[in-house]
Amino acid sequence: MTQVDERLWRVKREEAYRRFLSDLEIGYVDRDIKHIIELIFSKKRIFSTSSCSGRITIVDALYPWQRDEATVIFKKHEPVDVAEIEGILKNQKALYRLWMIVSGPILHINALNLDVAATVLTVARNAGFKHSGIISIGSNGIVVEIVSGIWVPFLLKDEDDVVVKDLSKVVKLANTMLLEGKQRLEKLFKFLRDADI
Amino acid sequence: MTQVDERLWRVKREEAYRRFLSDLEIGYVDRDIKHIIELIFSKKRIFSTSSCSGRITIVDALYPWQRDEATVIFKKHEPVDVAEIEGILKNQKALYRLWMIVSGPILHINALNLDVAATVLTVARNAGFKHSGIISIGSNGIVVEIVSGIWVPFLLKDEDDVVVKDLSKVVKLANTMLLEGKQRLEKLFKFLRDADI
Repeated sequence: MTQVDERLWRVKREEAYRRFLSDLEIGYVDRDIKHIIELIFSKKRIFSTSSCSGRITIVDALYPWQRDEATVIFKKHEPVDVAEIEGILKNQKALYRLWMIVSGPILHINALNLDVAATVLTVARNAGFKHSGIISIGSNGIVVEIVSGIWVPFLLKDEDDVVVKDLSKVVKLANTMLLEGKQRLEKLFKFLRDADI
Repeated sequence: MTQVDERLWRVKREEAYRRFLSDLEIGYVDRDIKHIIELIFSKKRIFSTSSCSGRITIVDALYPWQRDEATVIFKKHEPVDVAEIEGILKNQKALYRLWMIVSGPILHINALNLDVAATVLTVARNAGFKHSGIISIGSNGIVVEIVSGIWVPFLLKDEDDVVVKDLSKVVKLANTMLLEGKQRLEKLFKFLRDADI
């Protein structure tokens, strides 16, 4: 079995922490997730590599699950307003389709060993992040992806054709979903804080 | 660390296999996934507990990610036609909201040990099931959830208000997505068949 190389793991943890501090200084860190990343780094047997507190994006893609083939036109980690989305709809011709996608929070936590990874997974599930799982096992560590079921694409435009009937309703709904994700993040914070990791 | 109890694991595997055979007899087994389940049971160190080849459902729920609070009104593992969806839209008042949800394939594979689980995970990712992960580790075995990013809800009705502008377009798109999922399942079949598990 692939074993985690503890020395290598500590190097990677140190690198990730330095990156976090530098991102913080530049202003790259998503403000709604800063306290959780700090909490994670206060625990000695885990670290965080990438994270997002939840966001609303508009992408041009044939299908909303595409990444490499998709063009991101708009991205915001806070609620959006109708006017800004309307502006994009008016001015942006879709090469394929314009999807407005609400994504809940996502965190990658790298654990020192399988016991710690299993505990992180349990904590995440208990906090309502039911779609979490261990996504890689290697000498670098064991990576747990913490993710909820909150991921909802809304089709706005199909080539030239605006397919949404009531944009303000859709925007309102998207914002509610985004905030639901942010609330779950607070629950995760409490559960992680109280866990013996 | 929690170890898999091999004797218990074999009992669980036997139970799952008997359930599969009985479901097959009753006609419960989704026909698009039968050959994959048979393939999985032909490998000695894994078994399958639950699986779905992909489906289109209509649920009444405030949010499409809800399960316990949602009512499933319609479910089909094959493409749907506009008339049947239109009928539901006309006759069914939504308590909350009616969502038509396209889900790609999902499989739960229980592995005898972590090495096997890690191999299954790699095979799944290589076959395009990028959202796969190990979701539990216990004496019963190590469960890998194999899942793609294909999961798309379409809001059809908000209480009394039909919010979809062009139903035939949405139905066509949903069917295309469903079939994309089924194609990936065939890729998974080939990759699993050729893997040393």
